[in-house]
Amino acid sequence: MKIGRTPAFAVLRRGRQNLLAAALVAAVAYTSINTHAQDPLASWNDGPAKQAIVEFVKATTTQGSPQFVPPEERIATFDQDGTLWVEHPIYTQVMYCLEKVPALVKAKPELANVAPFNTVLELLHGDRAAMEKLTLPDLEKIAIATLTGMSVDEFTAEVKKWLAEAKDPRWKKPYTELTYLPMQEVLKYLRANGYKTYIVTGGGQDFVRVYAEQTYGVPPEQVVGTALGTKYGYAKDGKPFLTKEPKLVLNDNDAGKPEGIHLMIGRRPHIAFGNSTGDQQMLEYTKAGDGARLAMLVLHDDAEREYAYGPAHGLPDTKVGTFTQALYDEAKKNGWTVISMKNDWKVIFPFESK
Amino acid sequence: MKIGRTPAFAVLRRGRQNLLAAALVAAVAYTSINTHAQDPLASWNDGPAKQAIVEFVKATTTQGSPQFVPPEERIATFDQDGTLWVEHPIYTQVMYCLEKVPALVKAKPELANVAPFNTVLELLHGDRAAMEKLTLPDLEKIAIATLTGMSVDEFTAEVKKWLAEAKDPRWKKPYTELTYLPMQEVLKYLRANGYKTYIVTGGGQDFVRVYAEQTYGVPPEQVVGTALGTKYGYAKDGKPFLTKEPKLVLNDNDAGKPEGIHLMIGRRPHIAFGNSTGDQQMLEYTKAGDGARLAMLVLHDDAEREYAYGPAHGLPDTKVGTFTQALYDEAKKNGWTVISMKNDWKVIFPFESK
Repeated sequence: MKIGRTPAFAVLRRGRQNLLAAALVAAVAYTSINTHAQDPLASWNDGPAKQAIVEFVKATTTQGSPQFVPPEERIATFDQDGTLWVEHPIYTQVMYCLEKVPALVKAKPELANVAPFNTVLELLHGDRAAMEKLTLPDLEKIAIATLTGMSVDEFTAEVKKWLAEAKDPRWKKPYTELTYLPMQEVLKYLRANGYKTYIVTGGGQDFVRVYAEQTYGVPPEQVVGTALGTKYGYAKDGKPFLTKEPKLVLNDNDAGKPEGIHLMIGRRPHIAFGNSTGDQQMLEYTKAGDGARLAMLVLHDDAEREYAYGPAHGLPDTKVGTFTQALYDEAKKNGWTVISMKNDWKVIFPFESK
Repeated sequence: MKIGRTPAFAVLRRGRQNLLAAALVAAVAYTSINTHAQDPLASWNDGPAKQAIVEFVKATTTQGSPQFVPPEERIATFDQDGTLWVEHPIYTQVMYCLEKVPALVKAKPELANVAPFNTVLELLHGDRAAMEKLTLPDLEKIAIATLTGMSVDEFTAEVKKWLAEAKDPRWKKPYTELTYLPMQEVLKYLRANGYKTYIVTGGGQDFVRVYAEQTYGVPPEQVVGTALGTKYGYAKDGKPFLTKEPKLVLNDNDAGKPEGIHLMIGRRPHIAFGNSTGDQQMLEYTKAGDGARLAMLVLHDDAEREYAYGPAHGLPDTKVGTFTQALYDEAKKNGWTVISMKNDWKVIFPFESK
């Protein structure tokens, strides 16, 4: 139940429906008691990161606060890979594309001996060294071949099927279970305080939309991602459908994140979370707005419970989700909060706490 | 208050909070009484159009109905020009672009004698025949010159200022008052029944977003329109900003409407409203979904209270908001409902009923 400048309270002020008034007061009282009963960020250790989130929410949602933000302007944006779920050793969508190659080769046998598809087949047959041979243009070629040319409905069905069967090699669990419990709590906590939560990902918009609602409570219309165009056409029976095209509409990384936020949302976020250099511009753009704005970066510094990579803070370097020292310095200079997975998070995954 | 598969009811089922339960039952009873007290579509005459809307809402929102649609899937899309507000004699955004030309020429005097800008100056000085000289490429040139090259914030401020001063030549009222009351009622009625209402317009996304919330209750993130790209950059003081670029990202007309709906919303509408051939594909796409889907077209057949144009149904032909006989036949064949402004609407504008 939303408290404050809501239609419910407008009704109360009219002062005519006593029963309704009593009802709402009772409901509000219950909500209030319940809120105090449990910590919405229970998986977070007390510290500056947790404190920053709680104080931001209090400042922006308390009536009369100088930093109060009207409910309709409460926009929160979250990078996905490395911010909401595991991105190592390789982005989940890349795994999807690689694992779709055998089906692709079955449908088009002429690709079996053509690079980079033959390299992927070697890789999937256990030749891990083959991974090193794949260049970025190779990965783009594989992505185009496995993400376009089919209808939107076919693609959605294929992703659903894959997600139901595929497992992360380390935890032997479906990828959608490898989300970070502390970030799931932040999503819920912000929504409970009137924030609309958006995913703003470098990953494929259509890919993430398939599972975002079930996995994060984020509906398809609140997923902004790297987007390919579609083409409207008709089946033989006259039924219209959309085909996924190899045409880049939005590269939702780096400067593409604020550009994508403007295109898809049209409002500047008040709070944004990221974990790599690809999120820098989104955080800058968020912080450049008036009033209270919070920018946070997840630092993967927990080799034991998850992975450790940077190269910021002396952590091992990586090509997947790079968090440079320059970004770390930028964060410190601009008052962005760096979240240490090791120190700030009591628990990493939901399955640990069961 | 939402009734049905909501967290509130989940709480009720737990059967522990008696006071809350009593409160909710009382609130629901009140809501129910209030709904019966007044007709949400009071500006509509009884007839097949009004009946189609009411029956659609009842079928898709009544628990246990075979056509029940879960709240999260309730998407409604509305074309703007000619569907929600007046589009004759010329689209409001075209008026904006034309009326920005003097300021443009003041900033760049070298344009004063260059076509098509000199033609626009003649037109604005009262030479109505000059309008005939403007071709579609001319209008595109004017649009690019007046809609791009400035920051998103500057553009928003300019549109706001213009809207506060500009008046429609016939009614001598601000353009934002020339919305159709019956359609405003439909927007509210659908929202009251859990539908998310979207504008899906061939007009500029950034332009419509400036006033959509105040004018229609539709927030910026629920406006899909023809979109130009933006470019992220930094001011001299280091503050980041977005510049509007002359790069077409989405042409939200014809097939671009379902493509834009997929890009920006990612769900198929259950109900869609349009008024011209540019809306045909959106209505086809809407109707091609499973379950209850409603497609409606506004026919401008009221020369006295608004304008009359088609050329469908023997109405005068027009280049602005063309409703062809082929579209009319298509509507009849596919069970789309045609709304007659003359016969179905008691009142056209909100200011008439004051």
